Amino acid sequence: MAGLASLQAALGHEFSDASLLEQALTHRSHSAKHNERLEFLGDSVLNFVVASLLFERFTKIDEGDLSRLRASLVKQASLADIATRLSLSQYLRLGEGELKSGGFRRPSILADALEALFAAVFLDGGFDAARKVIARQYESILVNVDPKTLGKDPKTLLQELLQARKLDLPLYTVVATHGAAHNQMFEVECQIPKLDIKVSAGGSSRRAAEQSAAQLAIAAIDALTPAKGSGRSRARKSAQLSLPVAVSQETK
Amino acid sequence: MAGLASLQAALGHEFSDASLLEQALTHRSHSAKHNERLEFLGDSVLNFVVASLLFERFTKIDEGDLSRLRASLVKQASLADIATRLSLSQYLRLGEGELKSGGFRRPSILADALEALFAAVFLDGGFDAARKVIARQYESILVNVDPKTLGKDPKTLLQELLQARKLDLPLYTVVATHGAAHNQMFEVECQIPKLDIKVSAGGSSRRAAEQSAAQLAIAAIDALTPAKGSGRSRARKSAQLSLPVAVSQETK
Repeated sequence: MAGLASLQAALGHEFSDASLLEQALTHRSHSAKHNERLEFLGDSVLNFVVASLLFERFTKIDEGDLSRLRASLVKQASLADIATRLSLSQYLRLGEGELKSGGFRRPSILADALEALFAAVFLDGGFDAARKVIARQYESILVNVDPKTLGKDPKTLLQELLQARKLDLPLYTVVATHGAAHNQMFEVECQIPKLDIKVSAGGSSRRAAEQSAAQLAIAAIDALTPAKGSGRSRARKSAQLSLPVAVSQETK
Repeated sequence: MAGLASLQAALGHEFSDASLLEQALTHRSHSAKHNERLEFLGDSVLNFVVASLLFERFTKIDEGDLSRLRASLVKQASLADIATRLSLSQYLRLGEGELKSGGFRRPSILADALEALFAAVFLDGGFDAARKVIARQYESILVNVDPKTLGKDPKTLLQELLQARKLDLPLYTVVATHGAAHNQMFEVECQIPKLDIKVSAGGSSRRAAEQSAAQLAIAAIDALTPAKGSGRSRARKSAQLSLPVAVSQETK
């Protein structure tokens, strides 16, 4: 475990009770005083703080959209990204087995430890301290949130994109399946005849393959309409969609 | 809408900004400035505060049990109970249609308004104010929480009860079905031969009928073992199980 001063600096919180920090970083494979109870508490303080940040920032959007945005911001992949930015893996305390199998890189372990850290800050410094630490990690993320698109899956986004241009819905066709029944791969084609677009993608389920194909179709539409011609807003949308995080949620 | 002084007294919070209180009590059927965004925020502050109350109170139970307890404490029926205790229905602002159809008695409307109220307190007085208000409503409930049983369904409880006495698992049998396919009623019998117990109950699904039958079987076991002979702990358990709230969750 690396020295914890740099982690505390990155979080913006210096612990009065270092044992809380240590426990938050301890996986159950390491010792009995592990971080799972803290994770329970941290999950809920995180959910609340992100809810209140969104509530303040987006005063016009309804509760359904607020829920979608929050789900996207607190999902495992988003938390693992933050944990990676904090270099959390080098501070984790894992058991032998998890260490050898590379557990310090597992998104679930990273995300759980991050939630536990937030709880540790809350227990150590109270709610305002936890809110400050969480807000700091989400500051740069919130600036780039597009409330119209974040957290929507590629098929929904593609449909909305086409409807905005008054074009027909895309056509999805399974063009091939590979492998045995218990381990099938589906190849799906997505066609948008009016735009002369035909792309295909694979996935372990029909739904997953359709989502990946929709993602490619969106990229193809973006390629047809250069950013400088299509205005600010679409350019920003397409930049977001090309983030790997947005896809991985749907294609797994 | 009745005068709001008594509601504020019951909550233990006097609003600086009365418009927040008003908005929290306004259903979407009444006007555009309704309580749904507040409900989104209130749901998460409630979840967090209840999580932290449980975390403090039950220092030995694991995160799975903490989650089960919290789910039971913040579910709609529990919130509607609190709302009823606060006489919330007389303060609600509903549209004509909802008023006529008795919307002020609907558990969902009551629960949503209560969550919105918690958010309003948070926005009005900060986190500590919200925590105090929520803790006050849960004080009497938390005293009676049995972490071993609360939130478990009757089949699970019956199974644990029998295992503790080293008895065989109960036998569930569908003894009759009534009605057309789209609106079937199932009648299920639950047998515990060693205790000479045979009870039956109906439900709109096999699962629901089994849960109701298990509930009756637990009551039958309790009747066999008078409270004074069976010690404090079982007497308390059975008292909890006979609460209507515990059943309605599973049999709907």
